Amino acid sequence: MAKIIDPWGTTLIEDYSKLIKDFHLETFNPKIFPNPNRLMRRGVVFSGIGLKEISDAIKNKKSFYVLSGIVPSGNKIHFGNKMVVEMISYFQKQGAETYILVADLEAEAARGISLEEGRKRALKFHIPAYIALGLDPKKTIFYFQSDNIDVMHAAYKYSKKITEAQFKALYGSATPSKIFSALTQVGDILYPQFKKRMPGIIPVGVDQCPHILLTRDIVNRIRKEKFFLPSATFHKYTPSLNGHFKMSKSMPESLIELPEDPKIACRKIKKAVTGGRDTLEEHRKYGAIIEKDMVFELMKQHLIEDDNELNHIYKEYKSGRMTSGELKEIACKKITVFMINLEKKIKKARQNVNKLKFIKRG
Amino acid sequence: MAKIIDPWGTTLIEDYSKLIKDFHLETFNPKIFPNPNRLMRRGVVFSGIGLKEISDAIKNKKSFYVLSGIVPSGNKIHFGNKMVVEMISYFQKQGAETYILVADLEAEAARGISLEEGRKRALKFHIPAYIALGLDPKKTIFYFQSDNIDVMHAAYKYSKKITEAQFKALYGSATPSKIFSALTQVGDILYPQFKKRMPGIIPVGVDQCPHILLTRDIVNRIRKEKFFLPSATFHKYTPSLNGHFKMSKSMPESLIELPEDPKIACRKIKKAVTGGRDTLEEHRKYGAIIEKDMVFELMKQHLIEDDNELNHIYKEYKSGRMTSGELKEIACKKITVFMINLEKKIKKARQNVNKLKFIKRG
Repeated sequence: MAKIIDPWGTTLIEDYSKLIKDFHLETFNPKIFPNPNRLMRRGVVFSGIGLKEISDAIKNKKSFYVLSGIVPSGNKIHFGNKMVVEMISYFQKQGAETYILVADLEAEAARGISLEEGRKRALKFHIPAYIALGLDPKKTIFYFQSDNIDVMHAAYKYSKKITEAQFKALYGSATPSKIFSALTQVGDILYPQFKKRMPGIIPVGVDQCPHILLTRDIVNRIRKEKFFLPSATFHKYTPSLNGHFKMSKSMPESLIELPEDPKIACRKIKKAVTGGRDTLEEHRKYGAIIEKDMVFELMKQHLIEDDNELNHIYKEYKSGRMTSGELKEIACKKITVFMINLEKKIKKARQNVNKLKFIKRG
Repeated sequence: MAKIIDPWGTTLIEDYSKLIKDFHLETFNPKIFPNPNRLMRRGVVFSGIGLKEISDAIKNKKSFYVLSGIVPSGNKIHFGNKMVVEMISYFQKQGAETYILVADLEAEAARGISLEEGRKRALKFHIPAYIALGLDPKKTIFYFQSDNIDVMHAAYKYSKKITEAQFKALYGSATPSKIFSALTQVGDILYPQFKKRMPGIIPVGVDQCPHILLTRDIVNRIRKEKFFLPSATFHKYTPSLNGHFKMSKSMPESLIELPEDPKIACRKIKKAVTGGRDTLEEHRKYGAIIEKDMVFELMKQHLIEDDNELNHIYKEYKSGRMTSGELKEIACKKITVFMINLEKKIKKARQNVNKLKFIKRG
């Protein structure tokens, strides 16, 4: 059971390189992609599967797609969603056909959010937030899971292609709701290929890895249908501010949601676990322990675009010339600008949701 | 595991009264229904669940529904389907709103029959055969499972309402394909109540009992939605001509399909296991062992409508005045007339399929 990653659950992934080994994943090499983005350059995207197919498609200007789903629960998203959008945006710029689905069936079954309510929330918040974070809506095809009868047919059909034991090997257990959710996601992942077979890439947090592996398993079992095996990039979690492994709603101080009032975000940053030393004297002498610093990690992953700027801060902080208090000041300024801009962009995107291209029911 | 009935499988049910006890079913009492049909009068429908609700709805002229599904595989149906149609027809005459669904998703996943092919077969054969057997098409609403997005939504939603252990307790195992099939059937069974809550009855062979129990379980877990618990009648298997418990395609001599060339049907009847004695002398002296006689059972269940006629044959055969050869002659004549009529009626019904009322996709 040690090899199970649970997409719905609580499993902690302590060691990313062990994960790569256990699941036979590929180590991510940013050099095979043109103009890698911040997440790719900085090792936040640390792994993937089928990456060469996508790199080749980009190089040879062949059709490929990028796809992701939004679960329309709550009225906030998180930094994990931001990473997904940044990866979508990257591949979108490289020419990928882009699909965003709203997993309203999942939200209804798992969270009790009615389909109507899920639709409302997605249009009011989640889709505008994705656009605010960099998704190009003009180049994106959207659909609601509950409208996509082809995906539902596919899920039912693929259910025959996997045994209970195979499902358990991937997911740890085989509850009816996991089976519906996972197989519907397989349908979603392959959906862009229903009309035209082509490579596709699914950028996900590593906890979603089982869905990618399940889809690849099923594609291998229906070879005569000639689907391309879906590729994926896997990114790390955004570290929790209180030093826990992953931000979690159960620990509000660990978590900055999107959007969040900049004052609250700054307050949380000020309380965050850093790599600063116990006294100023020691700090100046030994410098910060950057690997333990949640604020630096947050800036690296999300708040500082320019590599030179980040390198400069790294050196100053590592050497002890910059204190953790000064680092937090910088982070607070950055996140304030980011949150103000995000709110503005969400509002603007919301005004244009009626222009989006949705696949119709049926 | 002794308590499992497998709707997809091979379980034999040796003792119907034990089944009633194990599953807390009701013994069927034909007296609570007006003008019970042949199957109800003769104990072929031997059990049910929630029967009083339906009997009350009939008496009080309240809305209720009857529903069944057709799996459009093969180009034959069997006596089990005939019993279902006769029960539907009975409740239809008592005022039930009638729903027939074509389980094309099931046929695709389980039998590899494409949705297009399933649709074609259902329109060309299965639906006309149901009409030929007594279904009133003018009073029936039809749908293809693959068109019914509401049923698919419901299946997904209900998947959260049942655990793996509960599913296994009903079905013996919890494979992904069983889970999709069973939960989609739950959606089908409740579908007529989506717009209007009302009692409903599902006439099934006893092997389908787990679907009824699962649906009732789920209705109990979503009480605030106020669905009526679906009711059911359970009928026995039509005995296999070679003395096995159930007709089976794996033993062609055991099985008369519908329709079948009357000559072949008669040949099978002539080879059938009877309750006749080893010699004519013994037969005249001791009479037939009717409980072991597959031909008499076939006539009782399907070929003789008039109770007086059946009683007369029973007495003659039981007393030894009628031989098993003579009994087979009667059965052969009856089945010949039946098959010729059936073929005619199917042809006629096929010409009118374009007039049927189908629920549209979406």
